[in-house]
Amino acid sequence: MKIAILPGDGIGTEIVAEAVKVMQVLDLRFETETALVGGAAYEAHGHPLPESTLQLAKDADAILFGAVGDWKYDKLERALRPEQAILGLRKHLGLFANFRPALCYPQLTHASSLKPELVAGLDILIIRELTGDIYFGQPRGRRTAVDGQFPGAEEAFDTMRYSRPEIERIAHVAFQAARKRSNKVTSVDKANVLETFQFWKDVVTEVHAAHYPDVELQHMYVDNAAMQLVKAPKAFDVVFTGNMFGDILSDEAAMLTGSIGMLPSASLDKNNKGLYEPSHGSAPDIAGKGVANPLATILSLAMMLRYTLQQPAAAERVEAAVQAVLSAGLRTGDIWSEGTTKVGTQAMGDAVIAAL
Amino acid sequence: MKIAILPGDGIGTEIVAEAVKVMQVLDLRFETETALVGGAAYEAHGHPLPESTLQLAKDADAILFGAVGDWKYDKLERALRPEQAILGLRKHLGLFANFRPALCYPQLTHASSLKPELVAGLDILIIRELTGDIYFGQPRGRRTAVDGQFPGAEEAFDTMRYSRPEIERIAHVAFQAARKRSNKVTSVDKANVLETFQFWKDVVTEVHAAHYPDVELQHMYVDNAAMQLVKAPKAFDVVFTGNMFGDILSDEAAMLTGSIGMLPSASLDKNNKGLYEPSHGSAPDIAGKGVANPLATILSLAMMLRYTLQQPAAAERVEAAVQAVLSAGLRTGDIWSEGTTKVGTQAMGDAVIAAL
Ligand SMILES: CC(C)[C@H](C(=O)O)[C@@H](O)C(=O)O
Ligand SMILES: CC(C)[C@H](C(=O)O)[C@@H](O)C(=O)O
Repeated sequence: MKIAILPGDGIGTEIVAEAVKVMQVLDLRFETETALVGGAAYEAHGHPLPESTLQLAKDADAILFGAVGDWKYDKLERALRPEQAILGLRKHLGLFANFRPALCYPQLTHASSLKPELVAGLDILIIRELTGDIYFGQPRGRRTAVDGQFPGAEEAFDTMRYSRPEIERIAHVAFQAARKRSNKVTSVDKANVLETFQFWKDVVTEVHAAHYPDVELQHMYVDNAAMQLVKAPKAFDVVFTGNMFGDILSDEAAMLTGSIGMLPSASLDKNNKGLYEPSHGSAPDIAGKGVANPLATILSLAMMLRYTLQQPAAAERVEAAVQAVLSAGLRTGDIWSEGTTKVGTQAMGDAVIAAL
Repeated sequence: MKIAILPGDGIGTEIVAEAVKVMQVLDLRFETETALVGGAAYEAHGHPLPESTLQLAKDADAILFGAVGDWKYDKLERALRPEQAILGLRKHLGLFANFRPALCYPQLTHASSLKPELVAGLDILIIRELTGDIYFGQPRGRRTAVDGQFPGAEEAFDTMRYSRPEIERIAHVAFQAARKRSNKVTSVDKANVLETFQFWKDVVTEVHAAHYPDVELQHMYVDNAAMQLVKAPKAFDVVFTGNMFGDILSDEAAMLTGSIGMLPSASLDKNNKGLYEPSHGSAPDIAGKGVANPLATILSLAMMLRYTLQQPAAAERVEAAVQAVLSAGLRTGDIWSEGTTKVGTQAMGDAVIAAL
């Protein structure tokens, strides 16, 4: 098994290093190869996703990704900014199925901004389509408006679009995931306004009727979903939606837990090859200080073991080790609270290894 | 002054009736005219926004709107569904500036799902562009894909677009609103992915530099905004964004208060003519039972007095009366809690009038 290691920018290097340490103590044989991505790759090669990095990612069975981005690249033209690396990897590798769990750890319930009773035991799985929608739809650009409210004015535009097979395949992923959980799916759309999401709703309804009548399906408008997530998050189980709405709702759901430094993610292609990354970003403000939380990255490794490497026992071992260090009271700064022990990035990684 | 009264569907009739009662006891001269809109108009005239209703709205100085929608219209073709009435009114009347306050009343702080200290005193003003973006952009529809991931497949698509003057005018509204508050604006975009919102960010930056250097301007990605609203809502003051993101974020922000039955809204054109409506929906499940909360509609009347009718003293009187009934412990079912007095829709309206 070959794993591509792409630490990226900011805290990416530090947190990925800890996950790699964990990987190495598992009784499994991996070949790993590391490459630059994001701002780091731009500095070295003039592009956030150099051909060599893309090729490595294509050749690997799975990718462990840290984070990309830094304010200092804000002035670059869009095509050269660090985020283009992650968008490019998703697109070129066909990583259409994004799994983003929003899990509230019992040891960290109090870290949520929500009242404890509303989030205790929270366990939502957001499934976000990741290679379509307005993220990649053509045409897009700037032009002179020929119609609309101000013909003749300068305008910018993007195209939202979903085709039937794109919706069908992510719907299958969502319904199948639901069967392994509580058999309940909420499909989020904006069918009352958008043609794309009326079509989404229609296709999801068809896939459900034809293949998954045993799964409970609910349709919800995106604005209502944004509200209900705040009001009663535990009413959700699998939430699935398009790329743009998923970007917003998965971050909202992640923040409900109060501990985004704990949340992993997986982005899978049709063969379960995947890119695994923490849900949080590159946090340039704390980079290099040895204080970042490596647990989301270590838990992303656990997702890799489960989804791509078919090693569920090893995945569970890693997850149990993370639980153990939390129960032992170890905390990085982002999840620290009175009465617990503050540790740095490396000490946290070491503790997970010790718990293994 | 001529006010068009459009109660609409579900609880719309009941809550608007209370606001009209309040209007009538103010020492101001209004002419009012009532018309059907939404599902009620569809039943009577075969269209959710009949020509006569649209004409009345155009001729009026302001519109008091209840709510539209009911599950029973879900199977109708989109053009005939109740929501089209509100979209049509916004478009035909040029109501591009939507003001949606998210205010946490001291008497109701405990109703929030968030911890009290995070929402006590919360006072955010969301300013949402309301006549552009992917809501109205052409072209849109269904077709056979000629490119993308599945050429030849059936697909649906929509167009996101904003022109320079559209962005400029809403930016002016937001910066001017900020000057009357804490002089702080957060412009929400997705410039890292969308051409439309890179342009949005560019134009907002220009308007700011040219006209409002005294106002503090922060740019934030929409996914981050969805997170930060949950994490630390009081860090925001004026939040302004496009139609689609505004739809999602304003509902999220409204729910943070825990009392969406209290939140009014205003949708203004370039001359401050406006449509005023509660932020909540038509709640068909409780319609006709006399239990709906009329306060958001009564507070929408207060916004009408302030923004369109230029009667700030009357607006303050209405708002103070609402505060008084809350302080007296009167609550409709949606905001009721142990130790307060549960009242129905009419009793609540009567109490506001008594407090005036
Ligand atoms: C960095 C950005 C392009 C990306 C996205 O919008 O998808 C990020 O927000 C995410 O959710 O992974
Ligand atoms: C009913 C619907 C079309 C509308 C919207 O999406 O704008 C509503 O959600 C709102 O926010 O007023």
